[in-house]
Amino acid sequence: MRYEFYYWPSIQGRGEFVRLALEEAGADYLDVARGAENDGAGVPALLRLLDDASLAQPPFAPPFLKAGKRVIAQTASILWFLGARHRLAPSGEAGRLWTHQLQLTLADFVDEIHDTHHPIAGSLYYEEQSEEARRRAADFVKTRAPKFLGYFERVLARNPSGGGHLVGARRSYADLSLFQVVAGLRYAFPRAMARLEKKHPRVVALHDRVAERPRLRAYLRSKRRIAFNEEGIFRHYPELDG
Amino acid sequence: MRYEFYYWPSIQGRGEFVRLALEEAGADYLDVARGAENDGAGVPALLRLLDDASLAQPPFAPPFLKAGKRVIAQTASILWFLGARHRLAPSGEAGRLWTHQLQLTLADFVDEIHDTHHPIAGSLYYEEQSEEARRRAADFVKTRAPKFLGYFERVLARNPSGGGHLVGARRSYADLSLFQVVAGLRYAFPRAMARLEKKHPRVVALHDRVAERPRLRAYLRSKRRIAFNEEGIFRHYPELDG
Repeated sequence: MRYEFYYWPSIQGRGEFVRLALEEAGADYLDVARGAENDGAGVPALLRLLDDASLAQPPFAPPFLKAGKRVIAQTASILWFLGARHRLAPSGEAGRLWTHQLQLTLADFVDEIHDTHHPIAGSLYYEEQSEEARRRAADFVKTRAPKFLGYFERVLARNPSGGGHLVGARRSYADLSLFQVVAGLRYAFPRAMARLEKKHPRVVALHDRVAERPRLRAYLRSKRRIAFNEEGIFRHYPELDG
Repeated sequence: MRYEFYYWPSIQGRGEFVRLALEEAGADYLDVARGAENDGAGVPALLRLLDDASLAQPPFAPPFLKAGKRVIAQTASILWFLGARHRLAPSGEAGRLWTHQLQLTLADFVDEIHDTHHPIAGSLYYEEQSEEARRRAADFVKTRAPKFLGYFERVLARNPSGGGHLVGARRSYADLSLFQVVAGLRYAFPRAMARLEKKHPRVVALHDRVAERPRLRAYLRSKRRIAFNEEGIFRHYPELDG
């Protein structure tokens, strides 16, 4: 079965956590909104599904994944679903839930990263809230980023199975997501990260190892990987990088 | 088995979503941080578990639930766990995931509600960010609250099993959580909600029905239900209620 994946075509955004899982799994998927409109794809196809009044279980927002007749939204829910089907999470309930708990904590981290440049409203441009962004980013760099990174460093240190994975002895979607957060933070806050990485060697090692997984290595060098840019979650505004 | 529930003792906060599920289930639980310090409970007990270096799967932050030897954190993960054990969600995988997807959308809504009064930093007082809060709350009331409430109104309208529930024909933890969000919005934004409720009759009807469920009705009138206040997520600052 070919999955249909729906997300905004010009940014990594929250969709990238799903793309990484699909790529690592070697899953067959169509990145619908990046397709051509005259093939019935593109952003119009995304909006059609989002507004489809016949869906009994509609998504609130992208990303969402169509798997047969099911449409699953919310990044962490999609990963729960893919994790079970593609061995991107343990098979037992307790291990699945722990992986998911880590993903939800990463989602909280990502929300806070987004709000460094959009503290007032997603509907306004950065330039309309850059003063507030400066205040919020200063607190983020000083207190929030170290708190989150310190947490994942502790989880890695305490994983009794070792191997540098967050969960057990195998890679999971949580590892892929932590990779993405580190990559994004390096792009958005290079000066702050140069300091923070020294204190979080296990997190950095996980990032580097995930980047070298054969399928992801190929993906990251392909055109399928959208470059970081100032439309996404991770944006490089030098004035916010304290 | 008696659950041990851990959350800050003076606010409803994110913990309230778990308390409502435990109460509706009639589960045996101890609200640890509200207990007496000389019984080994209270906030010190919460901090002890949060800082317990022997936990291989540590929580990032409250709320968390101790079930036997397991410690489960993240509100939505705790509800996933309780949903399966206390029939607060469908038993099939697809129904469980749909309920969870709704919960994650409610969690996003709650994050945005929190940030109306704390747009810059959780570590600062409201008074240190009240100007920014005014801007953020204006956007929230005008665009975000209608978007979220409209979504849940649509989900209720499209539920083929009817009965006024979000999921299938029975109440789920997602219903309890939507009740809590409506109750909190009424407290925080009474003027805005007086307008918004007229456009979302199904959401209001769900709130009213959940409040009359026998166990919840008893809970809401008991001392176990902490009153809304200006330390929690839902705060009433008249200047933010546009």
